[in-house]
Amino acid sequence: MEIREQFVAFIHRLQDDICAALERVDGKARFVQDEWQRPEGGGGKTRVIANGNVFEKGGVNTSVVFGEVTDVMRQQLKISGQRWFAAGISSVIHPFNPFVPTIHFNYRMFELYDEAGHTIDRWFGGGTDLTPYYLDETDARHFHQTFKAACDAVDTTFYPEFKLTCDHYFVNTHRGHERRGIGGIFYDHKRAGENYTTTTWLTLAERCGYAFMDAYLPIVEKHKQDTFTPAHKHWQEIRRGRYVEFNLVHDRGTLFGLKTNGRIESILMSLPPTVRFEYNYQPAPGSDEDKLLQACLQPVDWANFVTEEERNAWAARTNTC
Amino acid sequence: MEIREQFVAFIHRLQDDICAALERVDGKARFVQDEWQRPEGGGGKTRVIANGNVFEKGGVNTSVVFGEVTDVMRQQLKISGQRWFAAGISSVIHPFNPFVPTIHFNYRMFELYDEAGHTIDRWFGGGTDLTPYYLDETDARHFHQTFKAACDAVDTTFYPEFKLTCDHYFVNTHRGHERRGIGGIFYDHKRAGENYTTTTWLTLAERCGYAFMDAYLPIVEKHKQDTFTPAHKHWQEIRRGRYVEFNLVHDRGTLFGLKTNGRIESILMSLPPTVRFEYNYQPAPGSDEDKLLQACLQPVDWANFVTEEERNAWAARTNTC
Repeated sequence: MEIREQFVAFIHRLQDDICAALERVDGKARFVQDEWQRPEGGGGKTRVIANGNVFEKGGVNTSVVFGEVTDVMRQQLKISGQRWFAAGISSVIHPFNPFVPTIHFNYRMFELYDEAGHTIDRWFGGGTDLTPYYLDETDARHFHQTFKAACDAVDTTFYPEFKLTCDHYFVNTHRGHERRGIGGIFYDHKRAGENYTTTTWLTLAERCGYAFMDAYLPIVEKHKQDTFTPAHKHWQEIRRGRYVEFNLVHDRGTLFGLKTNGRIESILMSLPPTVRFEYNYQPAPGSDEDKLLQACLQPVDWANFVTEEERNAWAARTNTC
Repeated sequence: MEIREQFVAFIHRLQDDICAALERVDGKARFVQDEWQRPEGGGGKTRVIANGNVFEKGGVNTSVVFGEVTDVMRQQLKISGQRWFAAGISSVIHPFNPFVPTIHFNYRMFELYDEAGHTIDRWFGGGTDLTPYYLDETDARHFHQTFKAACDAVDTTFYPEFKLTCDHYFVNTHRGHERRGIGGIFYDHKRAGENYTTTTWLTLAERCGYAFMDAYLPIVEKHKQDTFTPAHKHWQEIRRGRYVEFNLVHDRGTLFGLKTNGRIESILMSLPPTVRFEYNYQPAPGSDEDKLLQACLQPVDWANFVTEEERNAWAARTNTC
């Protein structure tokens, strides 16, 4: 099987598995699928969930698209070649309860072909990151440790690099160093070469794609029935505003999609369901809201910031959920 | 008095007058002022109103700023010169009631100086546009006719040109031809020259700036006590989502401010207070929501689309408010 066929099979399998898992956790809402075709070549499966017991809005989308290299692509992506192929899975899940974090992930590959149809370039990218509204340090450690383990299984140099890249990418630079959330991993333009093979990057995408299950679902289970007040919901909606700011002002994938006739509704699926923008809103210093904000301003080495005792206590607690 | 001093006096007077008028219409909330300084030169007065009887969130801001021409400015604004000066007033008003439209306006001037401090270029820009959530054709005509009259008093070629520029500017191009609202007027880079003097553009800004009173306040009075349901509010929040999309993805002023260390909270004051993003939301064909959408997709020549009888009936109705 060709590389791209392996990757396409992987993203479709992951899409099925994650949708099924999220439906089980939600217990009420079901994903609805929209299949779409792209006039220039290829298409996608957009699967959205809304107004569930747990998930207020979410999507798990795959797309497999291809076409001629256009002038816009030559300029914006700085690529050459005659034809291109791209496949990816991307997801954003917005829970209703402000104590359940939002999660985003995206795993993708890209190929370029010359006039004879030979592959002249191929790269991989991806990542998963967490956007809590309240900081649960145990969850933050668990999330990062799970992705560290997934990366370490492929190469132990990956997690530190990808964690740093993630911390540098999801920044609302117009607000100084304020990040959208507490990070995770992010990597891009990864090719086969001296140190790594194509299999390295395929395996990494599979490991990290499936790490969603262990990294996120226990956090959802742990908090999905937490009680909350309108003030908690208010803060969630303020932070969701920052999510909107990042996605519409800075996110490369979103902007590229909007400027190149991508499927708008699939791209903007990522935007949170209800959002608030208030003039100069500042949480009270030392409040729970401020603690979260500080964690977004100052990245923490969550994966290594834990004792064995804490790890066991967390495991015991989540096992009883 | 120098041109720039005249313009600064005008924007401060207009800011005072509009804030006072809006407070009268609201009857409860008061504008709160934040004065800010810009380290590189100048500053501004941000005045915001929130949670009133009528206005859920709004701002009327002025700024008078100056500095050295930077490389970013040379690239993005394609300007030369040594130092620059800019002054402007800008406002966005988001009423709570979905039957009261949102309004935006902005009037500004810019000067460039050479090393000896001589003015080497000066231009003016501005505009006012309306974003209703439900279409009241009488209001739409009144709004456009008021700005047509303000423009006509200076030059009868202005309104048709500025109306067209407005219809072409406030477009969510990622959604095809869908505009943010039903337009108004918009002009930019207007200089003294063969046909016009600096006084032309100063007078235009004053006429159009003050036309806010006649154009908008009667519409607010007419609808501020309209009854509405959660479904109307829901649609308003969906449309507010499109407002966010336009401002964060396309608006030149917003993006320039975000990328050049502008005062973030003053710039993002424009974002609506509560917003909804739903996957692939489409109003039912023929519904009131759809009628508004169609008016955003297909601009109407509102100013000329009216009989004398209709004009009188409208005047009679609004006079009794």
